[in-house]
Amino acid sequence: MKVAFLGERGSFSELAAIEHFGPSAKLQAKPDFPEIYRSVVDGNCSYGVVPIENSLAGSIHQNYDLLLESGLFITGEILLRIGHFLIANKGVKKTQVKRIFSHPQALAQCKEYLKRFPDAEKIPYPNTALAVKKIRDEKLNDSAAVASMQAAINFNMNILAGNIEDNKWNTTRFLILARKAEKPPKGVPVKTSVVFSMKNVPGALFKCLGAFALRDIDLYKIESRPVHGKGFKYLFYLDFEGSAESESQRNAISNLQEITRFYRFLGSYPQGKPVQPKMP
Amino acid sequence: MKVAFLGERGSFSELAAIEHFGPSAKLQAKPDFPEIYRSVVDGNCSYGVVPIENSLAGSIHQNYDLLLESGLFITGEILLRIGHFLIANKGVKKTQVKRIFSHPQALAQCKEYLKRFPDAEKIPYPNTALAVKKIRDEKLNDSAAVASMQAAINFNMNILAGNIEDNKWNTTRFLILARKAEKPPKGVPVKTSVVFSMKNVPGALFKCLGAFALRDIDLYKIESRPVHGKGFKYLFYLDFEGSAESESQRNAISNLQEITRFYRFLGSYPQGKPVQPKMP
Repeated sequence: MKVAFLGERGSFSELAAIEHFGPSAKLQAKPDFPEIYRSVVDGNCSYGVVPIENSLAGSIHQNYDLLLESGLFITGEILLRIGHFLIANKGVKKTQVKRIFSHPQALAQCKEYLKRFPDAEKIPYPNTALAVKKIRDEKLNDSAAVASMQAAINFNMNILAGNIEDNKWNTTRFLILARKAEKPPKGVPVKTSVVFSMKNVPGALFKCLGAFALRDIDLYKIESRPVHGKGFKYLFYLDFEGSAESESQRNAISNLQEITRFYRFLGSYPQGKPVQPKMP
Repeated sequence: MKVAFLGERGSFSELAAIEHFGPSAKLQAKPDFPEIYRSVVDGNCSYGVVPIENSLAGSIHQNYDLLLESGLFITGEILLRIGHFLIANKGVKKTQVKRIFSHPQALAQCKEYLKRFPDAEKIPYPNTALAVKKIRDEKLNDSAAVASMQAAINFNMNILAGNIEDNKWNTTRFLILARKAEKPPKGVPVKTSVVFSMKNVPGALFKCLGAFALRDIDLYKIESRPVHGKGFKYLFYLDFEGSAESESQRNAISNLQEITRFYRFLGSYPQGKPVQPKMP
């Protein structure tokens, strides 16, 4: 069973994939999000793992758009605690660091700590683990990278400082994607995700949410995304409590479909609990 | 009257500021969003202009967060049609272009057109107009930038291709910010923005929206943002029809405040209509 994830070995996406599928899964690193979706659509990989939301930075919109375009389904979620580390080549001291490479979100998440390096240039890089690889491959002795502990270990690098993130509640939510929807197991808390659009009339969203409120179904998240090419018209992504096959949820969905112009089921799957990445 | 905006002369933010305040306003370029807010909070500038949402890319979350943190109010909005141009140094031909610099959103918005340059590296840059300045200052003859026509004119550069954006409905919504809320003029359509959080109980958002639905007040936009440091708890930003001082809206707001844990009024202001940047 092959699983597609973003980036280099040691990326947070890889940690999330290992957390979910265990160490024996065959993980396939992909260079960008569209490649992850493509490999699952093509059948080259059974599953894809993508970050959808960070508790500090908010939603990763590209993945909402790709989820809809690809036609894939959500079969699980992982809530991964994000710990950042300052990583450099062996022998490099903090005082030598004149450039710090990482993903822009990782740099932003360590903003307070990085004030200790006022003269160091903060350089955005597409991926945290790739930033570590870069300073190793290019033997940069004036540089450091912000990435996971796993990335430091994979690339055999030195850790200058640990858990440098400003906020210890830093959690990223990852989705597991597959070609077909899966029935969630019984006896665990389940979440359902759907996407819809509605007519632009007063109270339309109120009516849509009413389909759930009337049945005491808890809503976890609502996310609006502009419909491409339609000015400021929106699609709504909704996460709610329970399986789409339970009676109340089935009724709520059928009620919702009366009010929406477009509706698609994205998946019912076990609710994730926050986990700390396993350290070797 | 000084007005703070992001970037170099010729940025879309400058075009929006000129559109709203006219050519006689004293425009002050700032290097990042926090500096814009700071200059208005400090009283150094009377107004700030910030992009809040693009019809293709979605919301610019940092500006939602800064709006709340800064305590500023919204006094107006501008909906600016975004046209992109491929810009190079004089004498440079399309066949010479091996690197294309621009803001990542601008590169993404011209993805189809840029496929005509399969071998050219697409390089993200903090600001469209700055990308033009870079290739001019460094006399890069293997490079082009994607930016506004105004940026080409300001830097006295050559336009290789015009209106290269994939989607002609590409519009960015800018907000005008000030230290104090302003009373919107009479006789024009008005919009009100508020932000709130609520208890995590079933139906809470439904009840909040009900305050408006019961009074037939149209909702324009709802945006959720995670509360920093609180895991996946959300703040909701809501735009609705009418002035906060009209009777129905006053009642709806007072109803809303019964249900929310936190509430702040962000401003009532004239609704923007989409405008094309003025060309010289």
